[in-house]
Amino acid sequence: MPQFLNTADADFEQAFTALLGAKREDSPDVDAIVADIIADVRARGDAALVELTEKFDRMSLTADRLQISEAEIDAAIENVSAEERAALELAAERIRAYHARQMPADDEWQDDTGATLGWRWSAVSAAGLYVPGGLASYPSSVLMNAIPAKVAGVERLAMVVPTPDGQVNPLVLLAARLSGVDEVYRVGGAQAVAALAYGTETIAPVDKITGPGNAFVAAAKRRVFGKVGIDMIAGPSEILVIADKDNDPDWIALDLLSQAEHDESAQSILITDDEGFGRSVADAVDARLQMLERSAIAGPSWRDFGAIVTVQDLDEAAELSNRIAPEHLELCVADPRTLSEKTIHAGAIFLGQYTPEAIGDYIGGPNHVLPTARSARFSSGLSVMDFLKRTTLSQITPDALRAIGPAAETLAKSESLQAHGLSIRARLDRLNR
Amino acid sequence: MPQFLNTADADFEQAFTALLGAKREDSPDVDAIVADIIADVRARGDAALVELTEKFDRMSLTADRLQISEAEIDAAIENVSAEERAALELAAERIRAYHARQMPADDEWQDDTGATLGWRWSAVSAAGLYVPGGLASYPSSVLMNAIPAKVAGVERLAMVVPTPDGQVNPLVLLAARLSGVDEVYRVGGAQAVAALAYGTETIAPVDKITGPGNAFVAAAKRRVFGKVGIDMIAGPSEILVIADKDNDPDWIALDLLSQAEHDESAQSILITDDEGFGRSVADAVDARLQMLERSAIAGPSWRDFGAIVTVQDLDEAAELSNRIAPEHLELCVADPRTLSEKTIHAGAIFLGQYTPEAIGDYIGGPNHVLPTARSARFSSGLSVMDFLKRTTLSQITPDALRAIGPAAETLAKSESLQAHGLSIRARLDRLNR
Repeated sequence: MPQFLNTADADFEQAFTALLGAKREDSPDVDAIVADIIADVRARGDAALVELTEKFDRMSLTADRLQISEAEIDAAIENVSAEERAALELAAERIRAYHARQMPADDEWQDDTGATLGWRWSAVSAAGLYVPGGLASYPSSVLMNAIPAKVAGVERLAMVVPTPDGQVNPLVLLAARLSGVDEVYRVGGAQAVAALAYGTETIAPVDKITGPGNAFVAAAKRRVFGKVGIDMIAGPSEILVIADKDNDPDWIALDLLSQAEHDESAQSILITDDEGFGRSVADAVDARLQMLERSAIAGPSWRDFGAIVTVQDLDEAAELSNRIAPEHLELCVADPRTLSEKTIHAGAIFLGQYTPEAIGDYIGGPNHVLPTARSARFSSGLSVMDFLKRTTLSQITPDALRAIGPAAETLAKSESLQAHGLSIRARLDRLNR
Repeated sequence: MPQFLNTADADFEQAFTALLGAKREDSPDVDAIVADIIADVRARGDAALVELTEKFDRMSLTADRLQISEAEIDAAIENVSAEERAALELAAERIRAYHARQMPADDEWQDDTGATLGWRWSAVSAAGLYVPGGLASYPSSVLMNAIPAKVAGVERLAMVVPTPDGQVNPLVLLAARLSGVDEVYRVGGAQAVAALAYGTETIAPVDKITGPGNAFVAAAKRRVFGKVGIDMIAGPSEILVIADKDNDPDWIALDLLSQAEHDESAQSILITDDEGFGRSVADAVDARLQMLERSAIAGPSWRDFGAIVTVQDLDEAAELSNRIAPEHLELCVADPRTLSEKTIHAGAIFLGQYTPEAIGDYIGGPNHVLPTARSARFSSGLSVMDFLKRTTLSQITPDALRAIGPAAETLAKSESLQAHGLSIRARLDRLNR
């Protein structure tokens, strides 16, 4: 059974704080192993990749077979059914359209001193995309990472995906093809991250690495951060549903379970203003857990981290939602729009009962890579911005320098940075001659 | 003497690669000490802050004196001269005007299925600003960090600044006042970062921490990252000047020295298409070093990390510039605009010989917190975006769900995520009844 809380209870604050602080993930300490792997790849390049792939993925490779060739990709994606291909194409098209609207504008203007100021956006030159192998090898993740990179204008997008025992998911390769991925390598783990960050004879280094992975991949990304950019290190998935009694309990139950089935550490929370409705949802979850293929994952997640919170009104729901700062927030209430204006700390909001969160995982258009573990308080989901950087521009005219230079000189002196002041003074003296 | 390189030399590539790879900073390993300090502040709150401040800053405090009162700030800023106040006010006004233009727009639209999609930006609720004490206590840094936060809409902005032996820089307090900082605390070091991240009885926790600091502060920021957001960890300052022969060597020398005087690990590089001009600049640097107050800092920086690179033409200069990805890039050439379109990897570009980099440190308007150590390849300077996060919005109508739901169901099945598919199927079945 999940926890049942009620804001009217005397011990609510204590219980809710405990819920917020629940440690949901035991990440094994793999840092020393990862440091060795990175050092090995830096020192020996392809030879290390080949050896580590043999060891971890039971794949006997040579350097010239690290890359999955276009012909191999062609052959693999022939196995994708027409229905799956059409679904993936529709998803790619919708994700591309959404992210194209995110492209920020350059700006440039003259201020009243005659100085020209502005900024210019440019794409990261080369990006690397990590894709897990095995069970967590999701074609949707390829679309969600690769499409924003290509929309942003990344020229070279290299993907790495482990193929344990030679197994590769044809849908992952099709997703890469549809997204415009330029190169695909059959390597994974910390060794793949090291290769993307530092380069080997076969794999040229990139400037930014994104994509999900296990504890080894996460530790490797942390280690190479600074040498290259990385995206967030994602924690277990989360959903918060705020629902009134005018909902089908089974729908809400399925929405809660669609996060719970990801991971035993996932967290699904329902906030409702009707305690009876909350109990109906709990019953519906139990009924669905009886038949769910992944009940061995979803069950423990719901039991250990699930919660049903009864509030006195929807304003209270919004307050609690902002304290949770959920990755996914579903608003199944009569006026979801008004409520959404109060729930400002959330990665993605799904409005109304016909917007199940799963739509956002695949096909809505917005990105499904979203901030977890309360980080929606200060960070955003993946977007084209992750593959762009801004250069600021200033052009000062002689008149503008006369207007603002002396103040800069004053400040430089007050900070005891003499050369700063002199670099301005030397120009002013020439102008005043 | 700095290094002289020429792209025409046989060993150029080797020498340039060595220049790029030069390790410029030995950061002492303070991680264990910092971990203890953070644990202490988490466990004992204000009491730990008081003790650590006594130990490190030789300041005997009580919890009720951790905050610098408005009356104390009033008294301190009375000591600021009218000239300095006017300079700081002009800088604040210009920085505010520049950053106000950075505010991104919300968006919302209906697509052809009838689904409403969009996103909304919102500010981080509370931010913390670290300001170093002593020599590196720069009022300009307060403006550059605090103003973007307030422009973004951060409601609560708390500043921490150590006041060793009770000394506080009145200009720093005036900069805080002008920027709209809400609370100022006289604490510093890892203990101040811990207080901002986890809160104490007196200091409420924040969601994001920005601002420069020493090795202890940097290590503390790395440790609390995840619990709160942080800005980049800045390395030593850098400038690249691309100049043709039609420049005053003394001006270029002063621009190079204005970075070199920051730090012995700072790096100043000149790229020119005229070897003779390069030698004249080197001579001008030597002459200025004779009289510079900070020659004991600027001299070693220039000797150990400075370089003058002669190229055959400006296209080659742009290529090298992109490989360096400098924090600051000055373009002192006849057509700086055309060249700036080729130098895409840079934190900030200063166009033309009347735009010394020092203008950007104080008063130009763009931010002076910029990516160092080649990270301009994948990251940007500080901006309002660092204090905002984006929530994506989706509202699917019944018609839209009929149009796109089946494809999402197909993809959920192919990823073996049954509950995801069922959450869509349950709704489609109702609609199709």
